[in-house]
Amino acid sequence: MLLHLSTWPEVESYLAGRSSIILPIGSTEQHGPTGLVGTDAITAEAIAAETGARTGTMVGPTIPVGMAHHHMAFPGSMTLKPSTLIALIRDYVVSLAGHGFTTVLFINGHGGNIPTVQAAFYEVYEDLRREKGADAPKVRYALCNWFTMPGVAALQNELFGDREGYHATPSEVAVTQAVYPDHIKSAPLEPLAPVDPDFHDCRDFRARFPDGRMGSDPSLATPEHGRRFIDAAVTEIAARYGAFLDGA
Amino acid sequence: MLLHLSTWPEVESYLAGRSSIILPIGSTEQHGPTGLVGTDAITAEAIAAETGARTGTMVGPTIPVGMAHHHMAFPGSMTLKPSTLIALIRDYVVSLAGHGFTTVLFINGHGGNIPTVQAAFYEVYEDLRREKGADAPKVRYALCNWFTMPGVAALQNELFGDREGYHATPSEVAVTQAVYPDHIKSAPLEPLAPVDPDFHDCRDFRARFPDGRMGSDPSLATPEHGRRFIDAAVTEIAARYGAFLDGA
Amino acid sequence: MLLHLSTWPEVESYLAGRSSIILPIGSTEQHGPTGLVGTDAITAEAIAAETGARTGTMVGPTIPVGMAHHHMAFPGSMTLKPSTLIALIRDYVVSLAGHGFTTVLFINGHGGNIPTVQAAFYEVYEDLRREKGADAPKVRYALCNWFTMPGVAALQNELFGDREGYHATPSEVAVTQAVYPDHIKSAPLEPLAPVDPDFHDCRDFRARFPDGRMGSDPSLATPEHGRRFIDAAVTEIAARYGAFLDGA
Amino acid sequence: MLLHLSTWPEVESYLAGRSSIILPIGSTEQHGPTGLVGTDAITAEAIAAETGARTGTMVGPTIPVGMAHHHMAFPGSMTLKPSTLIALIRDYVVSLAGHGFTTVLFINGHGGNIPTVQAAFYEVYEDLRREKGADAPKVRYALCNWFTMPGVAALQNELFGDREGYHATPSEVAVTQAVYPDHIKSAPLEPLAPVDPDFHDCRDFRARFPDGRMGSDPSLATPEHGRRFIDAAVTEIAARYGAFLDGA
Amino acid sequence: MLLHLSTWPEVESYLAGRSSIILPIGSTEQHGPTGLVGTDAITAEAIAAETGARTGTMVGPTIPVGMAHHHMAFPGSMTLKPSTLIALIRDYVVSLAGHGFTTVLFINGHGGNIPTVQAAFYEVYEDLRREKGADAPKVRYALCNWFTMPGVAALQNELFGDREGYHATPSEVAVTQAVYPDHIKSAPLEPLAPVDPDFHDCRDFRARFPDGRMGSDPSLATPEHGRRFIDAAVTEIAARYGAFLDGA
Amino acid sequence: MLLHLSTWPEVESYLAGRSSIILPIGSTEQHGPTGLVGTDAITAEAIAAETGARTGTMVGPTIPVGMAHHHMAFPGSMTLKPSTLIALIRDYVVSLAGHGFTTVLFINGHGGNIPTVQAAFYEVYEDLRREKGADAPKVRYALCNWFTMPGVAALQNELFGDREGYHATPSEVAVTQAVYPDHIKSAPLEPLAPVDPDFHDCRDFRARFPDGRMGSDPSLATPEHGRRFIDAAVTEIAARYGAFLDGA
Repeated sequence: MLLHLSTWPEVESYLAGRSSIILPIGSTEQHGPTGLVGTDAITAEAIAAETGARTGTMVGPTIPVGMAHHHMAFPGSMTLKPSTLIALIRDYVVSLAGHGFTTVLFINGHGGNIPTVQAAFYEVYEDLRREKGADAPKVRYALCNWFTMPGVAALQNELFGDREGYHATPSEVAVTQAVYPDHIKSAPLEPLAPVDPDFHDCRDFRARFPDGRMGSDPSLATPEHGRRFIDAAVTEIAARYGAFLDGA
Repeated sequence: MLLHLSTWPEVESYLAGRSSIILPIGSTEQHGPTGLVGTDAITAEAIAAETGARTGTMVGPTIPVGMAHHHMAFPGSMTLKPSTLIALIRDYVVSLAGHGFTTVLFINGHGGNIPTVQAAFYEVYEDLRREKGADAPKVRYALCNWFTMPGVAALQNELFGDREGYHATPSEVAVTQAVYPDHIKSAPLEPLAPVDPDFHDCRDFRARFPDGRMGSDPSLATPEHGRRFIDAAVTEIAARYGAFLDGA
Repeated sequence: MLLHLSTWPEVESYLAGRSSIILPIGSTEQHGPTGLVGTDAITAEAIAAETGARTGTMVGPTIPVGMAHHHMAFPGSMTLKPSTLIALIRDYVVSLAGHGFTTVLFINGHGGNIPTVQAAFYEVYEDLRREKGADAPKVRYALCNWFTMPGVAALQNELFGDREGYHATPSEVAVTQAVYPDHIKSAPLEPLAPVDPDFHDCRDFRARFPDGRMGSDPSLATPEHGRRFIDAAVTEIAARYGAFLDGA
Repeated sequence: MLLHLSTWPEVESYLAGRSSIILPIGSTEQHGPTGLVGTDAITAEAIAAETGARTGTMVGPTIPVGMAHHHMAFPGSMTLKPSTLIALIRDYVVSLAGHGFTTVLFINGHGGNIPTVQAAFYEVYEDLRREKGADAPKVRYALCNWFTMPGVAALQNELFGDREGYHATPSEVAVTQAVYPDHIKSAPLEPLAPVDPDFHDCRDFRARFPDGRMGSDPSLATPEHGRRFIDAAVTEIAARYGAFLDGA
Repeated sequence: MLLHLSTWPEVESYLAGRSSIILPIGSTEQHGPTGLVGTDAITAEAIAAETGARTGTMVGPTIPVGMAHHHMAFPGSMTLKPSTLIALIRDYVVSLAGHGFTTVLFINGHGGNIPTVQAAFYEVYEDLRREKGADAPKVRYALCNWFTMPGVAALQNELFGDREGYHATPSEVAVTQAVYPDHIKSAPLEPLAPVDPDFHDCRDFRARFPDGRMGSDPSLATPEHGRRFIDAAVTEIAARYGAFLDGA
Repeated sequence: MLLHLSTWPEVESYLAGRSSIILPIGSTEQHGPTGLVGTDAITAEAIAAETGARTGTMVGPTIPVGMAHHHMAFPGSMTLKPSTLIALIRDYVVSLAGHGFTTVLFINGHGGNIPTVQAAFYEVYEDLRREKGADAPKVRYALCNWFTMPGVAALQNELFGDREGYHATPSEVAVTQAVYPDHIKSAPLEPLAPVDPDFHDCRDFRARFPDGRMGSDPSLATPEHGRRFIDAAVTEIAARYGAFLDGA
């Protein structure tokens, strides 16, 4: 059930029995010579939609631009400052909590978002505590990074081994190929060399990773792989967060 | 050309010859008993994509949640505070300007966004002036509200007359039907009565407009109407903003 | 009745029967070779004071500096960032609402303020909703731009035709002459040429409008014209906003 | 020379030889049973205007609303939060510095403004240091509280002795009478008792000082006293800040 | 009783009978050729701890970095922007007030902190007023600058006369020597010359006071002096703020 | 080498050869019935000081209050909002970078700080990118959480096994005992039961963990254990971050 394809009376009916919503969060950033700039939003949105469908949970709008400073030396990358992303998440979850969506699961497609999303939860908790004290609504947040779940990691290892790498990975590229099979890109790729997945600012990132990949071989990706990753992720999310989404 | 379906080398190639980008901005808010909560984002995104295709202009990610305080008394509505939306737009356009996207056309689907988007342009201009003075990049912004363009208004009048109304209108609902023909909703609607399109806060809005419509009859909408509105809007945007998008 | 010339017991008495206040908002910015830097504040203040007198409404302090980024390439212009102006308006109206001034009419003398003032209303509404929910005070705001009211526009057309222009207009200059007849300035003016009232940042503004006027001939202004504009504006404001100011 | 009554070419001429500007800052707050709500703005503006006239210095717009939390339990009082006032002062002085007004003297009419204005100076200095480093403009700020200057204090003592008090004082009321002789108010006043000029929040203030005065007898004020205070203050400001205003 | 060396049940017991807490605030900034960068934090912490011990008052964590823009041209100096320091103080005192610490005495070691700390008190008062109105907790704040108390000033004069100066003074250096007798520094000092304790930004400060001292002779300091200053300060604070700390 | 016990010429000498600084960051929060409220600041400070001594690196002031919302239901706990902590860290590191401290290692004693500190690094990187572009100083940040380093975890396991738990752990309590052997607290402790180290807001935390511990048995701690943990942590930090601190 997608919020943007629902009417308000349909939302009202849903809230009569449920209090959960899934919010996909991605990023708009370079993903190497062949990965789509929208990769992280596309993957999060697809996995969130399928999770919503299987668990009967409402899915809200995707946050398409996240915290991607480290990719800003590549054309097309966009970023929010962490402080802006905190304000945005605060506004999203406070809007939703006011209607009764007190249980929020973020399904995240981008590692760079993790700290800021977690900080945002505490910004909201603390604001609510100060403003409302004991009367504050009992909101609950959880953050699921689909690409690091154990079952997904096992599949990454099985399919790609150490060619999975850390950014512009074949697993995420595969998911975008499953979603957009008409937008599969190819380009010559430099041979892989071992990488140190550590960096400082965006200049340092580009100096270390000149074509944007971090030790990955996205040429291994296929749409069929993508479908398997979606299925593995959704299965695992439903198992791990099912009780949470049911309000338990 | 959609940014999220491009690779960074493709963006780099585009920027070798062009400096324009289109940013769709919508809202996530009630649209009456039969309109989709995502209406304003869906319409802006569809019209932006088609405008990009016809004019060869890059189209960036849609801003799905805007300034919709006045709809917050209806379940499912979400809003950013104006100050958050200003920060978000600043981050978007500053990110893009750094790559050379110095000409930005916002295609907007929601009247409530207009003041804040305009305020955001001046926030950015003034920040750049203070930080960089004469060296500030020569960015240019424009805001196009597709639903009030003269040609669109003429078509609204031709097709729906005074049943177009002010919110949850048949024209915008028709566009969503063209985009999502499998998600056309129906529900009994109270008969239309004359309305005063004026209101204060969200409580006042709901008291005046109990089912969320403002003097509109969305039952008149059809997908075919929607296609005509998309065409009319895109034709007019291309004519009016063509030179702007070409950097002139 | 002017707030700054009242004592607090007088304000208390007023609030026993009324809940309305008028807030003039202007700007401090260039107005061409002969217009005063304070034009927009002077006109808003004069029209607000007269409106208050005729309708028995309290008039608060004038906001003298508004959003005038686009004039910053001319000496003497001052601007607030939109985010600062939003914070200021929030503080003004929240201060006043705490005393019972729940109905606020802004009388505005500067087009550049419009988006930010409107955004500020929603910032306040949304803050109140979040902090106080159903207990939030029922505040109501309205924005009146005196210079675009139909009766004023008719008089502009009657007196000046297409020599009214868009900035440093004879109508606003005339109002300042009526208020400050000892400070009427003259200077040689370049002949008028057709203008496109569109611009981007402050550098672009000065490049397009080198002496600060936008297609206007302020040499047509006289103090007598100014008195007629004040009267026309106040008459129209009293008619249009009378019920609002009475709390209806 | 008043900025709001000047044209931009006049400002340009002034800046060819001078870099100084005076900014009056007041408050909108209760001043006891007979004092005007606008007292602090009226006094600062009058003394600033006369100082400007005697020293040939440009005078900018008056800040009419300052930091007056402690008076908010009395109707008609308005306050900015300190953080808002800091942002406002930053915008004022950065706007002016961009034109060459690098020397700014604030003439202040309200004790409650003092800490925030001083904090604002350092906010600006530190922002400029971070943004521009060694290239930052060499701006200079000074704050003059007219009501505590030694010569003014001597006159307060001579005329009113210990009936001057701490708020709603006869000296400040006298200055408003000199400026607005048609708005002299009278009311029965409780007899004076010794006060402890110390308080916490606005509830505490009203509990300690029920009619708004702090140990003062404003019934002693006359317009003639007001003229003497204006003269004493301006004479002393010109002597103390003359070299500063000349850019030395 | 030091908060950081207490357990939460000990704090709970304390709060059963008391509502006071002392917060030391210092700075991290140059103190001349021989003064420690941490001087202001060291002195505030030592005097606060002893005050807490003598009066049985809880002492919270020291704020080690304050507002020290004017010292930033010397290596090792650190500063918060005033707006950051206001936010920090707000968070400290709101955290504490929530537990029942409604009476807060700041013991301050740095003149540059004074305006911002005072502004912060009003930021908190006004936030509480807006958010909670009549239900706001009755918090009370006081700021004590140990180095300007009359008894301390008398001792400064007795021991050092006009060699006390304004910054990197023998009195504050002596206190650090009493606390850290193993970290007494010496260096050749330029002979004293009369100084004007006035300055603008940090560049101006260093130009006027090239080695960081302001008319002081810290070579006069001894640990024994330091012990006398601590005793004088604590004695005076206990006398002046005793009733305040007892909740009277 | 401790910054607060250095003079500015000593800092200048250090910076002639080095660009590194260590910043300890802790928290002020409940640590169970026997743990000190200042535990996380005490441990971070002790380990940072010893790391500085062994590696010859300057150590700056400890941040004593961090992000501890989840402990706010226990008396004595203090918290910054994440947005405040971001601003504070920005001010710290920007202050230091201006002097040449471009390499900053945070040694952190509190898990709740991790997301916000990481978000702060990107806030600074992105601000510098926007303000200075290619001229931005090449700052580098690293965050070390001493309590989760592999060698420390091995020692936790060796000494305490599954009685280490997640909060108010014997390892951190032991470190405070080593630092403050005169402040070792004891109290009867409820028997340990298995815990789920997951929680939402501070009310939820206290409901799940009524005495503040999370599955830990701090009665196992001894000062000798504390010395071993300090040594293990410092050894490991020096090995892992040595090259980083040397500017490599």
